[in-house]
Amino acid sequence: MASGAGDHSQAAMNVLREKVLTLDTVNPCVRRVEYAVRGPIVLRALELEAELRQGVKKPFTEVIRANVGDAQAMGQKPITFLRQVLALCIHPDLLNSPDFPEDAKRRAERILQACGGHSLGAYSISSGIQLIREDVAQYIERRDGGIPADPNNIFLSTGATDAIMTVLELLVTGEGRTRTGVLIPIPQYPLYSAALAELNAVQVDYYLDEERAWAVDVAELRRALRQARDHCRPRALCVINPGNPTGHVQTRECIEDMIRFAFEERLFLLADEVYQDNVYAEGSQFHSFKKVLMEMGPPYAAQQELASFHSISKGYMGECGFRGGYVEVVNMDAMVKQQLLKLRSVRLCPTMPGQVLLDMVVSPPAPSDPSFTQFQAERRAVLAELAAKAKLTEQVFNQAPGIRCNPVQGAMYSFPRVQLPPRAVRRAQELGLAPDMFFCQRLLEETGICVVPGSGFGQREGTYHFRMTILPPMEKLRPLLEKLKQFHARFTHEFS
Amino acid sequence: MASGAGDHSQAAMNVLREKVLTLDTVNPCVRRVEYAVRGPIVLRALELEAELRQGVKKPFTEVIRANVGDAQAMGQKPITFLRQVLALCIHPDLLNSPDFPEDAKRRAERILQACGGHSLGAYSISSGIQLIREDVAQYIERRDGGIPADPNNIFLSTGATDAIMTVLELLVTGEGRTRTGVLIPIPQYPLYSAALAELNAVQVDYYLDEERAWAVDVAELRRALRQARDHCRPRALCVINPGNPTGHVQTRECIEDMIRFAFEERLFLLADEVYQDNVYAEGSQFHSFKKVLMEMGPPYAAQQELASFHSISKGYMGECGFRGGYVEVVNMDAMVKQQLLKLRSVRLCPTMPGQVLLDMVVSPPAPSDPSFTQFQAERRAVLAELAAKAKLTEQVFNQAPGIRCNPVQGAMYSFPRVQLPPRAVRRAQELGLAPDMFFCQRLLEETGICVVPGSGFGQREGTYHFRMTILPPMEKLRPLLEKLKQFHARFTHEFS
Repeated sequence: MASGAGDHSQAAMNVLREKVLTLDTVNPCVRRVEYAVRGPIVLRALELEAELRQGVKKPFTEVIRANVGDAQAMGQKPITFLRQVLALCIHPDLLNSPDFPEDAKRRAERILQACGGHSLGAYSISSGIQLIREDVAQYIERRDGGIPADPNNIFLSTGATDAIMTVLELLVTGEGRTRTGVLIPIPQYPLYSAALAELNAVQVDYYLDEERAWAVDVAELRRALRQARDHCRPRALCVINPGNPTGHVQTRECIEDMIRFAFEERLFLLADEVYQDNVYAEGSQFHSFKKVLMEMGPPYAAQQELASFHSISKGYMGECGFRGGYVEVVNMDAMVKQQLLKLRSVRLCPTMPGQVLLDMVVSPPAPSDPSFTQFQAERRAVLAELAAKAKLTEQVFNQAPGIRCNPVQGAMYSFPRVQLPPRAVRRAQELGLAPDMFFCQRLLEETGICVVPGSGFGQREGTYHFRMTILPPMEKLRPLLEKLKQFHARFTHEFS
Repeated sequence: MASGAGDHSQAAMNVLREKVLTLDTVNPCVRRVEYAVRGPIVLRALELEAELRQGVKKPFTEVIRANVGDAQAMGQKPITFLRQVLALCIHPDLLNSPDFPEDAKRRAERILQACGGHSLGAYSISSGIQLIREDVAQYIERRDGGIPADPNNIFLSTGATDAIMTVLELLVTGEGRTRTGVLIPIPQYPLYSAALAELNAVQVDYYLDEERAWAVDVAELRRALRQARDHCRPRALCVINPGNPTGHVQTRECIEDMIRFAFEERLFLLADEVYQDNVYAEGSQFHSFKKVLMEMGPPYAAQQELASFHSISKGYMGECGFRGGYVEVVNMDAMVKQQLLKLRSVRLCPTMPGQVLLDMVVSPPAPSDPSFTQFQAERRAVLAELAAKAKLTEQVFNQAPGIRCNPVQGAMYSFPRVQLPPRAVRRAQELGLAPDMFFCQRLLEETGICVVPGSGFGQREGTYHFRMTILPPMEKLRPLLEKLKQFHARFTHEFS
């Protein structure tokens, strides 16, 4: 920092000093966050796409992003009725257009009536439009066979992620050994590990049983809880059903076991049920935690605290980009509900287009409505194709030596287990990579297929997996699965 | 909990035990959060509206919500071009409709080309669509007289709130006396106090100078910083310009002073510039912190860290409900930028309709475009009316004995100072209320006018204010101001 007395200003002041905010001084909780679904593999996929556009030669002509549950990015068409109603709400001049069905117009008018200034451009109250929360409550009642739902227990959100993070935030407290612990399934959707790191809570892993199609085992829950109590205060239990990344659908018995366990151990239940419309396997059925809880009667029905999350991003609609969702809280303390509302109010309101689409999802056209036939046909077509792709994925993977895949009963993912030769594992270790990350990187570079390594979701030590969506269109999925199979065989050969 | 051995299950299990999550066990940071803009006054306003609908007699026929900067809720019409383009993006069948101008169609096609699966239903990358970030960068360059902006320094967000909270989150670290301190203006927009409470950071108040039209005084900044250093580590300085709730527009000199101060004291600058299009007063001009910083040259230009926030919720567009915005980071460490992106990626992506509307705001129709004339006329009409209302507000208030209002140079609020008689202050204290809360509650009950007490924003001790938006339509604003003036006179008389 030497400078003459005369000209100190320019020279000395140009010397770069350390920034206020550096990797060493950034919030340490933020630094600990990891989010594999959009991690290094995906950044590399973006680079490869750019290289392809620039004409760089690759052993493939297209990058297939099977890393994220983003149906419309993979070519799924939006449901016409949803988009019609939203377009009408956004540009109400269209209410005079003969090109829109009457029921779509009625629906748009009904929503606009409930908006400030009759416009989506106004904020709603922080919990979301009252009318839409009432429609959500009715949806839940129908879904759960008449068990009542209260609109005042429903908070609309900007995607399910937003609501999940808010509920977790309420639960976080303590320091050191009194920090809040939250039980999450392994493998998990990495939002949970990321949110817990960000909130400085303790992640408590319970392993799903791969040998029993990723079922939850209460003995394993007990083990996880017992060990956790040595170093934190477990206060909540997260469940993802249908499962992400596992694609399993829990049985009713399993759900009852979890509820009993949560009650006995005084754990707040978080049920991530965003795939409730995505159940494909014969014999599998979606049971909401709320319904099971209520049907179990006392003491559970009136006392077990539960937050259940839903979203417009998955299901048959796949409207990820609009960021709509809700949480229903059950048996939540009234004063805590006020805290929740206060926290939501700082963010003003959930996005209005997300609220509008959610309303269509929870109250789709009735049989007497002009849009009913088309809506049903579109919905059925999407779900039937997803079911066929789930089946195909499982079949092809299970024909491959060294790959084993549990049935994709629901959600949008397969999570096959791959055998990696010991030499490949050693090579990965030399490179400082998780072995399945090494496998997925090579897969991407050689085939253009982008999947996420199992290590990003968690897995039993010494096992390797990857998560692949079932979303690519059938004509691409079939060759993709074959390519993947062949790549695994080549990779195994290369390192054996 | 007495129960016979035989029937213990039903009776004993029905005994209510304490919930996992109660006001005593909720996250203490959440509990400390306050957000006056949607606080008790507003909840009461909602109740009054419900009572009016039920036919309950009141001394007024309508509740006027002048508490929140929500232009369209107050009857402001959306800008046609913005809504046309968004409707086209949402329902691309409309691209064949003769009712939409060609430039709107071109714009919609251009955006859809940049979306996954050519649909708003797909996620974008976490920082927002590349094309839109490029348009934002060009907007900033034009705004700042050609000073370059890099799309890689721009992160789109779900409203400005979302981006502000993310940047604050990066800065938070330490415990006890090493906790991060953040300087915020008093009066402030309560997002800042709420976010700092939520993040467990230390709020460091610096007072704006009411006698000099709410100017920032560096001596006051120094005082605040010096005192804060006894109990925390100040790392950031927040500025709101044009000011909320104060309606002032900072001079260029004042901005230079703040930048010098931030540099000398090693503070990260956060510039909340969401009202950059809302400048009304003659002689007032918006200067962006980025532009001033760059024009100050070394060492500031290359070193001072800055985050500047903008939004689609304010300006002439007032599209609050869509939740769109962005942050531009300047001189941010590259590794920290990666942390920022990672944190954003956990939330997947900003809402797509918000991104689309932001694109129209940053690249409105050009003079050669068919939509130009109408767009300009609509934009000018909104801003001209806001300017007239700003002027009227200041005039009427300053005619009232006991009310004094600084010029509303910009933004959407007046923040008049009211004299409250000592007896009213004592009465409020007996009721356990802040005196200005007492005033505002009485105002609401007697006139239906909903404004927010100054205590929700912070004010010098012994002074009392309220924040009122200038948004009600002119035909309502005039009588509203008169009513308020008369109410203040009655209130003063009652308690004198």
